[in-house]
Amino acid sequence: MDINFMKIALDLAKKGEGQVSPNPLVGAVIVKDAKIIGKGYHKEFGKNHAEINAILDAKDPLLGATMYVTLEPCTVFKKTPPCVDRIIKEGFKRVVIAQKDPNQAINGNGIKRLKNAGIDVEVGILGEEACKLNAFYNYNMKTKKPFISIKAAMTFDGKIADMRGESKWITSEDSRNLGMYLRFIHDAILVGAETIRHDNPHLDIRGYEKKRPYYKIIISKKLYIPENLNVFKTSGETIIFCGKDADQISIKNLEDRGVIVFQNKTSSNIDADFIRNKLFEKGIGSILIEGGASVFANFIEPNAINRMYLFYAPIIFGKGVSAFGKITPRYINNPMKLDICEYKRIGTDFFVQGEVCSPD
Amino acid sequence: MDINFMKIALDLAKKGEGQVSPNPLVGAVIVKDAKIIGKGYHKEFGKNHAEINAILDAKDPLLGATMYVTLEPCTVFKKTPPCVDRIIKEGFKRVVIAQKDPNQAINGNGIKRLKNAGIDVEVGILGEEACKLNAFYNYNMKTKKPFISIKAAMTFDGKIADMRGESKWITSEDSRNLGMYLRFIHDAILVGAETIRHDNPHLDIRGYEKKRPYYKIIISKKLYIPENLNVFKTSGETIIFCGKDADQISIKNLEDRGVIVFQNKTSSNIDADFIRNKLFEKGIGSILIEGGASVFANFIEPNAINRMYLFYAPIIFGKGVSAFGKITPRYINNPMKLDICEYKRIGTDFFVQGEVCSPD
Repeated sequence: MDINFMKIALDLAKKGEGQVSPNPLVGAVIVKDAKIIGKGYHKEFGKNHAEINAILDAKDPLLGATMYVTLEPCTVFKKTPPCVDRIIKEGFKRVVIAQKDPNQAINGNGIKRLKNAGIDVEVGILGEEACKLNAFYNYNMKTKKPFISIKAAMTFDGKIADMRGESKWITSEDSRNLGMYLRFIHDAILVGAETIRHDNPHLDIRGYEKKRPYYKIIISKKLYIPENLNVFKTSGETIIFCGKDADQISIKNLEDRGVIVFQNKTSSNIDADFIRNKLFEKGIGSILIEGGASVFANFIEPNAINRMYLFYAPIIFGKGVSAFGKITPRYINNPMKLDICEYKRIGTDFFVQGEVCSPD
Repeated sequence: MDINFMKIALDLAKKGEGQVSPNPLVGAVIVKDAKIIGKGYHKEFGKNHAEINAILDAKDPLLGATMYVTLEPCTVFKKTPPCVDRIIKEGFKRVVIAQKDPNQAINGNGIKRLKNAGIDVEVGILGEEACKLNAFYNYNMKTKKPFISIKAAMTFDGKIADMRGESKWITSEDSRNLGMYLRFIHDAILVGAETIRHDNPHLDIRGYEKKRPYYKIIISKKLYIPENLNVFKTSGETIIFCGKDADQISIKNLEDRGVIVFQNKTSSNIDADFIRNKLFEKGIGSILIEGGASVFANFIEPNAINRMYLFYAPIIFGKGVSAFGKITPRYINNPMKLDICEYKRIGTDFFVQGEVCSPD
């Protein structure tokens, strides 16, 4: 019974995808006499939390009811008052929680406060599912770094472009639609300068209405960036990273056009940590890296990748640009490993989602 | 109703996999008063055909019965007398056939003879499934060439070996078991000299009892083959292809050990056609090529490959040996394409089976 209600709460939470970051996804269900009397989820950053939406949705009196909520209710004043106070005030008898909040400001305090108020509290029902759902948030809270995913569309032989560098339309339309969804659920999309110069992508999100600020990030050591790029024409903010060799006039020109420029003043390279830190400071909790091979290597080598989304199209190029060909070789006794979350056929392509296993 | 009985006949036919080549896989079901009264399949090359086995299996009288058979009954004396004569003799009323026999000696003659004897004949029920089942045989009959498959076990980035050439155990045990089944259903396994020298594989079939002659084929231009290879110790016949530079003493030595040696006397190379022709003459109807990259390219470039079995393990090597890295580049507007028959998760790996699309 508890599991069924929590499952509904988790499904509700998922509806907030793409809209609540850097907040977590949360869903809540209110049950009285084994009947659902209220449902809610966190719909948009800064707006009501799931618990409050469920309370507002309920038509029957709440005294003695049970709340199923996917994450520990908050105890802090931020954009909204603490949910814990409201739950206590409404006279709930029992609160079932899937996951303890990893945020240090809350972590266990919500549970303690509910218990002290005489409410029965149960924690861990579908806890694993809840943790998966909030993988980005949990990682952010734990490490103070953005969660980083790689998306690569390849041929069956692992090539992201042919020998001439052509890479558009390797995978099918269905795969590209899923690619849009992946952009939607992340806070930012990141590509390298070569990808920008060669493919001139829009880096926009088609088919989804995103209400959160949305970032398009380019890495360009020397800032050789043409002026008429498509990326400057689409909505969302553009951030460019450059190294110490980039000239100040180019930086000034870009800034005048509204682009945010971060320069690594100590090196001509821009390492993954520099990027992670700057972006996390800007409130970016998740990044989708779309290429190319140099950028992949730049993040994979220092072990800065959390997840991979790999699309394979049923074609073979022979020689071409290997997705991971710029990574220092790993050997059979110590390869880079992925924990597979999903294998899925998408039209004629196949799709894999895996979490990168940290070394050791 | 017809479809259900034919489905049973097809399942029976499949039981002969690995045992009947160069004959086709055939299954037969005899039905009277909507009840199955006899079942049979072609179990072993040279033994009874499916129709005869079904007739022998039947306990009730056959007069007026219907036979469902996956392939047109034969009209020729070979190892066994023509099935058509027996069907007519037993007084069958109706014969339902999935696929017309592509063998020019039969092709339609069986159907004609049955009709002339006053039997109702229907052709094409589950015809597509029957054609798929006998892909090897159909191709053999049409082209007088063996059907050639590639099996490659790769990392997620398309590597069949790491930078040092290590390639053992990339994929999981479950994948390797499926690999054994693939060996079992083909008449021969083929590898290059580098694979033989580096990996020293047994090229045997573990977990399946194969009653047909079984060939282990090595391609070695100069015949630099160590004497103590594992491949010489396992059952089955060994065939080695060499070019004109191979010395006669080496050839003699190998032949003295029971190895069949085919030398291309006009070139130091051994092209795919030379190999296909020699092997087809020896009665080999299907070949599984297991590596390495040079051999793959040697067959892919002249478009001699019919099918690919690709296994992907959730690991990444970065730089390494690309499965198809020795193929002349194909471009995005004209890549080599596969028609996907199957995507399947196998433990932590995934598996793809696809038919190579010929470049029209």
